[in-house]
Amino acid sequence: MVAGVSSGNARPQTPTTTNKIERWDVFELTLAGPKEGNPFLDTWLKATFRKDAREIVVNGFYDGDGVYKIRFMPDSLGAWSYTTDSNTTALKGKTGSIEVIAPSPGNRGPARVRDTYHFGYDDGTPYFPFGTTCYAWVHQPEERQLETLASLKASPFNKLRMCIFPKWYQYNHGVPPRYPFPREGDKNDYTHFNPDYFRHIEKRILDLREMNIEADLILFHPYDHWGYQEMPADVDDRYLKYVIARFSAYRNVWWSLANEFDLMRKKNSSDWDRYAQIVTESDPYGHLRSIHYSRAPYDYSRVWCTHASMQDYAFDKAAAWRATYRKPVIFDEMMYEGNINSRWGNLSGEEMTRRFWLCITAGVYGGHGETYVTESDIENDNAVLWWSHGGKLSGTSPQRIAFLRKIVEETLASGGGQIGFTQLEPPYYPSAKRSQDEAYLFYFDFHQPLYYDFPLPEKESYRAELIDPWAMTITPVAGKFSGKSQLKLLGKPYMAVRFTRV
Amino acid sequence: MVAGVSSGNARPQTPTTTNKIERWDVFELTLAGPKEGNPFLDTWLKATFRKDAREIVVNGFYDGDGVYKIRFMPDSLGAWSYTTDSNTTALKGKTGSIEVIAPSPGNRGPARVRDTYHFGYDDGTPYFPFGTTCYAWVHQPEERQLETLASLKASPFNKLRMCIFPKWYQYNHGVPPRYPFPREGDKNDYTHFNPDYFRHIEKRILDLREMNIEADLILFHPYDHWGYQEMPADVDDRYLKYVIARFSAYRNVWWSLANEFDLMRKKNSSDWDRYAQIVTESDPYGHLRSIHYSRAPYDYSRVWCTHASMQDYAFDKAAAWRATYRKPVIFDEMMYEGNINSRWGNLSGEEMTRRFWLCITAGVYGGHGETYVTESDIENDNAVLWWSHGGKLSGTSPQRIAFLRKIVEETLASGGGQIGFTQLEPPYYPSAKRSQDEAYLFYFDFHQPLYYDFPLPEKESYRAELIDPWAMTITPVAGKFSGKSQLKLLGKPYMAVRFTRV
Repeated sequence: MVAGVSSGNARPQTPTTTNKIERWDVFELTLAGPKEGNPFLDTWLKATFRKDAREIVVNGFYDGDGVYKIRFMPDSLGAWSYTTDSNTTALKGKTGSIEVIAPSPGNRGPARVRDTYHFGYDDGTPYFPFGTTCYAWVHQPEERQLETLASLKASPFNKLRMCIFPKWYQYNHGVPPRYPFPREGDKNDYTHFNPDYFRHIEKRILDLREMNIEADLILFHPYDHWGYQEMPADVDDRYLKYVIARFSAYRNVWWSLANEFDLMRKKNSSDWDRYAQIVTESDPYGHLRSIHYSRAPYDYSRVWCTHASMQDYAFDKAAAWRATYRKPVIFDEMMYEGNINSRWGNLSGEEMTRRFWLCITAGVYGGHGETYVTESDIENDNAVLWWSHGGKLSGTSPQRIAFLRKIVEETLASGGGQIGFTQLEPPYYPSAKRSQDEAYLFYFDFHQPLYYDFPLPEKESYRAELIDPWAMTITPVAGKFSGKSQLKLLGKPYMAVRFTRV
Repeated sequence: MVAGVSSGNARPQTPTTTNKIERWDVFELTLAGPKEGNPFLDTWLKATFRKDAREIVVNGFYDGDGVYKIRFMPDSLGAWSYTTDSNTTALKGKTGSIEVIAPSPGNRGPARVRDTYHFGYDDGTPYFPFGTTCYAWVHQPEERQLETLASLKASPFNKLRMCIFPKWYQYNHGVPPRYPFPREGDKNDYTHFNPDYFRHIEKRILDLREMNIEADLILFHPYDHWGYQEMPADVDDRYLKYVIARFSAYRNVWWSLANEFDLMRKKNSSDWDRYAQIVTESDPYGHLRSIHYSRAPYDYSRVWCTHASMQDYAFDKAAAWRATYRKPVIFDEMMYEGNINSRWGNLSGEEMTRRFWLCITAGVYGGHGETYVTESDIENDNAVLWWSHGGKLSGTSPQRIAFLRKIVEETLASGGGQIGFTQLEPPYYPSAKRSQDEAYLFYFDFHQPLYYDFPLPEKESYRAELIDPWAMTITPVAGKFSGKSQLKLLGKPYMAVRFTRV
């Protein structure tokens, strides 16, 4: 028996001899077991981790070549013990203990729902999602994946939507470097997993974790060429359990049951219910869970979803949806900045920026994607589109999204009230405030008033700043403001104003 | 008895001795009658105009000082005769004849609904409404009214929304130069009209007629300070009949029962039904009729409305509304270009322009308004806002609306199919075609595709032009296009493409 323990943000792949581990890091227990038969189907393994009165049961998985693993993400400091169980003697009754130490800087634990409509890390820090999308980046050549990681590092994005299965769609007709199941010709052997496929994804999840980027993992999707969208039900279920056993100890994992679930014609609502149940019951850590649609919205009031993951553009309904679902709302897909033929992939950078501001001032969150091509890309059939392949970001919105993220974090990250914004009631402009009137943010969209009477509370005093979201400037306004306050504005569209309580 | 006849676009105020009159001009019969008592209440007057088997009954009106008038707009060439009737001997049994001659250039007759969703003049010419709004312009100082007329003459606008009653609202707190009823202190004498008030409005309607601008007359409105929004029912009815008797012979008149009817809390739906009935029955010419709302849309499928006059911004629903009502749809109020505090009055010129393009490519029509103020206007409390006062146009959208109007007229004014555009089915961009595939117009809004596959018919051949709606340029694309046709576009937002059948 070999116990592998990682600490901090280092890779768990490097086993050490001590069982000291950071809170919210991964403890990995590696066990040798039988290779005979088909361990993927025949052998089960789990471990119970105990601390004081708590017991957490974690499923293990077969990693090939007679290697079995159990991964555990401890959520509290101190001494934990464990005992394994299995239907195989070699894996059964193994015991041990780990010592959980304080997290190093940057390790904030998993993101959770906080204050009903918002998110925070387990260490109490607020988390404001500013996501982007590279659906198939882990299935591209290694060099491109490294380029994607470098781009992400320099970007404002702290969440990434990505598919576990490879993708087949416009601009996506390549052969993936690996398959999740052994494959001969066009036939999948669903009785076995390809551990290397999942190991590779784990490496990328950890790369994201090092950059504090949440990995919003898409478990199923309809852009398929290999059969993964229409596997037998028992294979679907085994796949989900395998993925959860492998990935759930990574604190930055989110589960997205699907992208555009309603385009998967072979699934029905009881399939989605069953998947939701498996994900909910098999993940011992309660990672964030949702599902993304194409046409008709999913009913996000369903208990299993932690938040709404929308594909919509009705920003004026965002606040009402939030109130109806009583959950955070993320407009994960609100079209992409780019210039391709498809309507969803050719927003101007200005419009993408505008949509982020509309989300924030509605008290919800937006998602980015980028789909630029050049004439020569098209001629040579080698276009690299961030939205799917990753690569480089070339649009004009990311830097403005970075600017907005900074404003949001400055405005919301500290103070005593609920984190996050709440939209003001009409008839105001897209605008929001913090729960205890700590701050107000107004966005004027295509309106260009020369003066505006801002509805501030009578009993508080605020300083004001004019914000140009495109030029990325913040200009303080002289004076203090209380109650209904008239400010002279710039008389041009797409401007914003922030009030911060003195 | 004095018969006054006008011809062409000249003023009917100048009586002549011949009864020769242009088709669709105003024949005005002036009769002397009793001054005693209260002729407004006591005396009725009408005339029957006859030609071959046709009989048209027209109500006359009392113009004060013992003068009675009957106005008639003949709609067909040749000899007409008339006979008056009245409850007063002096006005009864007067007979005469008129000779209706061909209209002079520019006189196209009244506008009607054509091809279900569009408009045309009675002479067969299509009419594409590009309206603007100067609610209270006729109640401003004379000099400003002349300035307004000069501005209109230089503008693209061929329809004007204007109130019959004076207006009391933000930026509108002046004393009107005339009142519709004799007024002492704050008391209206509803038993009499002030003929001078209505004569003045007639002069302005004729000024508009000379410029081929339709006068979309608003009969009631809620921005009132003098009691006109809550007159007794019998006064409302008498007012409507008086206005119709005076104004309906002007071919450029439209009836708008109200602006924001739903804000007039003292009226109920049976009041509006009654007004609709009076307007429908009293107007012998069937001028265009509608009503404008603030919040919940009126049911424009009602038989009496000739078209929908909307205050809405849901341009993506426009085609569905059009199909539902089976009538032309005009977005008469879709906010105004300007910079005032109110949300409805501070659109950028770009956004106003965009909204016109969205209307046209949805197969409906838009309406303009302008609400700019300067700092010194506000300091000196003397702001002149086009939307209500008229005056000068200073925005950036009117010249772009002129550009669009030219495109619409070029594209739609000739050819064999139905006039007007029909929206293409999704998933296309805001885009429309002529009924017999004569032309296609695509507007890309905030989308910026580098290439786009246009869905042209297989069996037709088109020439293409790239249109920049803001720079106002039209650039021909080399070649002819049939069937699904890919064009390289400019890769920037708010561009348009027109295809014209060869």
